[in-house]
Amino acid sequence: MANEPRDNNFAEKVRESFARQSVMALIGAKLVRVEPGKVDIKLPYRRDLTQQNGFLHAGITAAIIDSACGYAAFSLMPAGTDVLTAEFKINLLSPAIGDYFLAAGRIHKAGKTLTVAHGDVFAVSSNEKKIIATLLSTIICVSPK
Amino acid sequence: MANEPRDNNFAEKVRESFARQSVMALIGAKLVRVEPGKVDIKLPYRRDLTQQNGFLHAGITAAIIDSACGYAAFSLMPAGTDVLTAEFKINLLSPAIGDYFLAAGRIHKAGKTLTVAHGDVFAVSSNEKKIIATLLSTIICVSPK
Amino acid sequence: MANEPRDNNFAEKVRESFARQSVMALIGAKLVRVEPGKVDIKLPYRRDLTQQNGFLHAGITAAIIDSACGYAAFSLMPAGTDVLTAEFKINLLSPAIGDYFLAAGRIHKAGKTLTVAHGDVFAVSSNEKKIIATLLSTIICVSPK
Amino acid sequence: MANEPRDNNFAEKVRESFARQSVMALIGAKLVRVEPGKVDIKLPYRRDLTQQNGFLHAGITAAIIDSACGYAAFSLMPAGTDVLTAEFKINLLSPAIGDYFLAAGRIHKAGKTLTVAHGDVFAVSSNEKKIIATLLSTIICVSPK
Repeated sequence: MANEPRDNNFAEKVRESFARQSVMALIGAKLVRVEPGKVDIKLPYRRDLTQQNGFLHAGITAAIIDSACGYAAFSLMPAGTDVLTAEFKINLLSPAIGDYFLAAGRIHKAGKTLTVAHGDVFAVSSNEKKIIATLLSTIICVSPK
Repeated sequence: MANEPRDNNFAEKVRESFARQSVMALIGAKLVRVEPGKVDIKLPYRRDLTQQNGFLHAGITAAIIDSACGYAAFSLMPAGTDVLTAEFKINLLSPAIGDYFLAAGRIHKAGKTLTVAHGDVFAVSSNEKKIIATLLSTIICVSPK
Repeated sequence: MANEPRDNNFAEKVRESFARQSVMALIGAKLVRVEPGKVDIKLPYRRDLTQQNGFLHAGITAAIIDSACGYAAFSLMPAGTDVLTAEFKINLLSPAIGDYFLAAGRIHKAGKTLTVAHGDVFAVSSNEKKIIATLLSTIICVSPK
Repeated sequence: MANEPRDNNFAEKVRESFARQSVMALIGAKLVRVEPGKVDIKLPYRRDLTQQNGFLHAGITAAIIDSACGYAAFSLMPAGTDVLTAEFKINLLSPAIGDYFLAAGRIHKAGKTLTVAHGDVFAVSSNEKKIIATLLSTIICVSPK
C-alpha cells in the first residue's frame, strides 16, 4: 500500500516535532530515517536506561518504538494537524541488550482519524542484529483547536 | 481474590530490585507502596520527560506502570525467582500533565508461569487527580539458570 | 466517574442493535443487563462453540465481551451515532468451561471520538463463578454519512 | 528466521486438532494452508456471522486469526505438547465485508514456553483483496499433566 505524504514539508515537520520531545534528548535517541510512513530511531545502550538485570527497560524500548510509529503516522498527515498515540501493545521478545537499539516504525493503515502502525525494535551489536520487541499501535490525528 | 505472598521477604526483594532499575533513578521515580500484589510508583513531572506538547511521553508513562505491575507480580512470587514482562498494552486516556504521576500496579491473576496484571496511572495536581492511562500486562516468572 | 446517557432512548437502541447482530443468535448469546455504561451478555455453554479441548473458543469469548463493551459505549453515545471497535486486547486467564458465561462490559473513559472500555468474562457453574478473561478495548463513535 | 518443525508429524497433528475445534465447523471455517509456522484459514461470508451492519463480527474475525496463529505455533512445537493462547490484541482496520475471509497466521518468535505470533485477515471479493484486521498474540506451550 503506497504511502503518499499529504504535506510536502513532512520530513521537516517530523524533525521539528522530534526535537521538541525532550525525553528523546534525555535518553540519547536520534532520528535516523524519515520517509513517508517510515521512521527509524536509534538509541545507544546506556547503563542508566536499564531494568534490574542490565537490559534496556521495557518502557524505554516502548518510548522509542512508540515515537517511531507516531512519526511514521505524522509523516502522512496533512499540514496543520498533530498526532497522539491512543494505545499500543508491545511484545518483548528477547533480552534488550546490545551496542545500540534501532526502532523501525511503519504504517499498517493510514486513516483520516485513526492510523494503525506497527514496528520492530532490534538490538545491534558488532556481530549480531536481533529483534527484541514488536509493537502494534493506534494513533489519532487531531486538529488544533 | 486474596494475594498471599509466598516469600516473607517480599517487600525487601521488591525494593532491592527496584533500586537496581537504574532508569527509575534517571527519571526520578520512587516506590511509594509495596504490599502483596499492590505496588505504587510516584513520578514528579519534569520537562525533560515529555513529548512534543509538554505532556509526559507515553514511553515514560508505560515505564512506571510496567514496573509497578511487574513488582506487584514479583511480590507474590516464590523466593529465588525473577519476573520479566512478556507483553503489555496501554491505553492513553488523557493528556499526561500534572504535578506528579502515580502508577498503581495490581494483579488480575497470579499463575505459576504467567501472571496477568493491570494498572492505572493518575496525574495529580493541587486540585485534581485524574486517570491518564490504563495498562494490561502479562508477566512471566523465571527461575535463574 | 458518572456515566450519563446522552440519549434517553439508550436501552432501546442497544437492544435493537444487539438484535441485528445475527452472530449473537447463532451462538445463543442474550443481553441480560443494559444500564448506562454497563452491559452484560450471557452465553450458555455449547459443545459446538469450543476449541480442541472442549473449552469455549477464545474468539467466542472475545465476541461476547467485545459486544458487551461496544454496547456499554453505545449506551453513552448521542442519538444518531454508531460505534465500531477499533481494537481490543484480551487476556485468557483460565480454561473457559462452565454452565454458562457472563461477559460484563464497562467504560473506562467515554470520549467524543474514542471510548475506552474494559470487561471481564466469568464462567459460572452450580458451585463456582470464576473469571476466565479480561479485555481492554478502544471504540470509535461514528456518525452516519 | 527459519521455522523448523520439531515434529515430523506437524501437519497431521494440526489438522487433527483443528477438526476438534467444533466452533470452526459451526462457522464454516476451513484450514487451507499448513506449513511450519504458517497456517491459513478460510471463512466464507455468511449473514449469520455478522454484527449490526452486516459486517463479520469482530469476535469471528478474531476466532479465525487466533486459530491460524495458534496452529502456526503448534506446527513448530515438539510432539506431545499442546498450545493455548495467553492473550491477543487485534486491530480492526476496515469493514469486514467480502465473499470470503482469509486469516494468515505467522510466527514472530517461537520460544520454549512462549511463542509470539502475528497475523492478518483479508476480505476477498471478485475484484479485491483487502486487509481488514491484524493481530499480535502470545501463545503458551503446555505439556499434558
